[in-house]
Amino acid sequence: MGQFERETAIERVGENHFRGELFEGWRIGAVPNGGYVLAIAGRALRAALPHKDPLTVSAFYLTPTVLGPIDCQVELLGGGRGTSFAEVRMRQEGQLKVKVTAAYTDLDKLSGENWSVVERPHFPAWEDCESPPQKGIEFRERVELRLVSGVQTFSERKPDGSGEFRGWVRHSDGGVPDVISLLMFADAFPPPIFTVFGPVGWVPTVELTVQVRAHPAPGPLQARLLTRHLTRGVAEEDGEYWDSTGQLVAISRQTAKVRIAKN
Amino acid sequence: MGQFERETAIERVGENHFRGELFEGWRIGAVPNGGYVLAIAGRALRAALPHKDPLTVSAFYLTPTVLGPIDCQVELLGGGRGTSFAEVRMRQEGQLKVKVTAAYTDLDKLSGENWSVVERPHFPAWEDCESPPQKGIEFRERVELRLVSGVQTFSERKPDGSGEFRGWVRHSDGGVPDVISLLMFADAFPPPIFTVFGPVGWVPTVELTVQVRAHPAPGPLQARLLTRHLTRGVAEEDGEYWDSTGQLVAISRQTAKVRIAKN
Repeated sequence: MGQFERETAIERVGENHFRGELFEGWRIGAVPNGGYVLAIAGRALRAALPHKDPLTVSAFYLTPTVLGPIDCQVELLGGGRGTSFAEVRMRQEGQLKVKVTAAYTDLDKLSGENWSVVERPHFPAWEDCESPPQKGIEFRERVELRLVSGVQTFSERKPDGSGEFRGWVRHSDGGVPDVISLLMFADAFPPPIFTVFGPVGWVPTVELTVQVRAHPAPGPLQARLLTRHLTRGVAEEDGEYWDSTGQLVAISRQTAKVRIAKN
Repeated sequence: MGQFERETAIERVGENHFRGELFEGWRIGAVPNGGYVLAIAGRALRAALPHKDPLTVSAFYLTPTVLGPIDCQVELLGGGRGTSFAEVRMRQEGQLKVKVTAAYTDLDKLSGENWSVVERPHFPAWEDCESPPQKGIEFRERVELRLVSGVQTFSERKPDGSGEFRGWVRHSDGGVPDVISLLMFADAFPPPIFTVFGPVGWVPTVELTVQVRAHPAPGPLQARLLTRHLTRGVAEEDGEYWDSTGQLVAISRQTAKVRIAKN
């Protein structure tokens, strides 16, 4: 069992009621990464629902989580043959911290047309890309990043002004990415707005939605993260994720508040 | 009072409990438009929350709605000085139909940086653009569309293969778009995948998330709707909306199932 699987494991404590734990190693500053927390909700949903794979999952982050136990109360909301719906309320010491709503399906049973206007971008190999020097980011102990674009944002404090990071991402223990890990990887890049203003300030997530499209093949994921519009301190962050075979496995969008630190 | 305001009005029937009604005029086929339904939830949220404007709103469509009364039970989920959170359960005859989660704020009090990598695209004027011939779409009685690109999809059955519609949209009675109407306009274009496969089949929304950025100025909204990835019958639809002054007022993303009708 890989580190991610171990540290997102849940225990059933009642009907549709689960307990997880937020472990060290996944924090950015003092706060566990929102994608990591969402992955624990993803495990609870998988345990409670007749369908086993996230199709679309939306999380609202009401107040920051802390290390330690987290209570996951799942409520089934109905559904049909192909899709089922549920919500998860994630609480710590009785306080609602994160509210998740999801549609689950069996991804391997999806049938329908395929089409894409965007092909997987061509990246240099994992081995030829650089890790951004992000000192003191505990999360980087668990999730390894290799940037193809935007690395100068960190290495030379030279933002390229693009609003975009491109790069590879993987479990740092080399673990195979499962479909639940996509919920975590969807929040694993630095905020792309750092490529405009530099790696300064605090960019808390208000809401994160992940659409999962396929089970990823083993190997690092290739990703592109982009902010197009920052409006009076509110930005979206859009992500696209391809597996090592070139298959699109997920897309993500979050609403974030951008708090630039003034020097 | 404009038609939209009248037909999304709610009545308080208890603490944080409201009743709306789904009117004729807003259906696509037999089913009321999902954005129209979401706007009614938006009114209930506005009535229940201390903050008055949607910041980000996410709806899961569990089962189709029908014309007639709709019950909106709001639950407050907490929040802080700048943002408050709530959910709405929308029921008809006791059955949960739509589940909405939202973060509300006061948009005029937002402060922070502005930046954009995408400018408002240059469109010909409203008067110089064509309405797509979408016969029998009742929704077009309420929401008028003028397409800048993709109109041949309908007029000549010649999809341009782009995955994109560009165009103007407005209340057909000329009503001023308010911030709640953005929730409806976010689901007002035909599915952009029609530009690839033609205007055939059924594209039900699983989940729709709208980020609102500003109060729109009077006049038609300018929009771009794009599908980038259709994966075994699942597509995202991304929208950007600018008001008549060129200000970005909202972005949207939905998860839709694409059911192409075979001829």
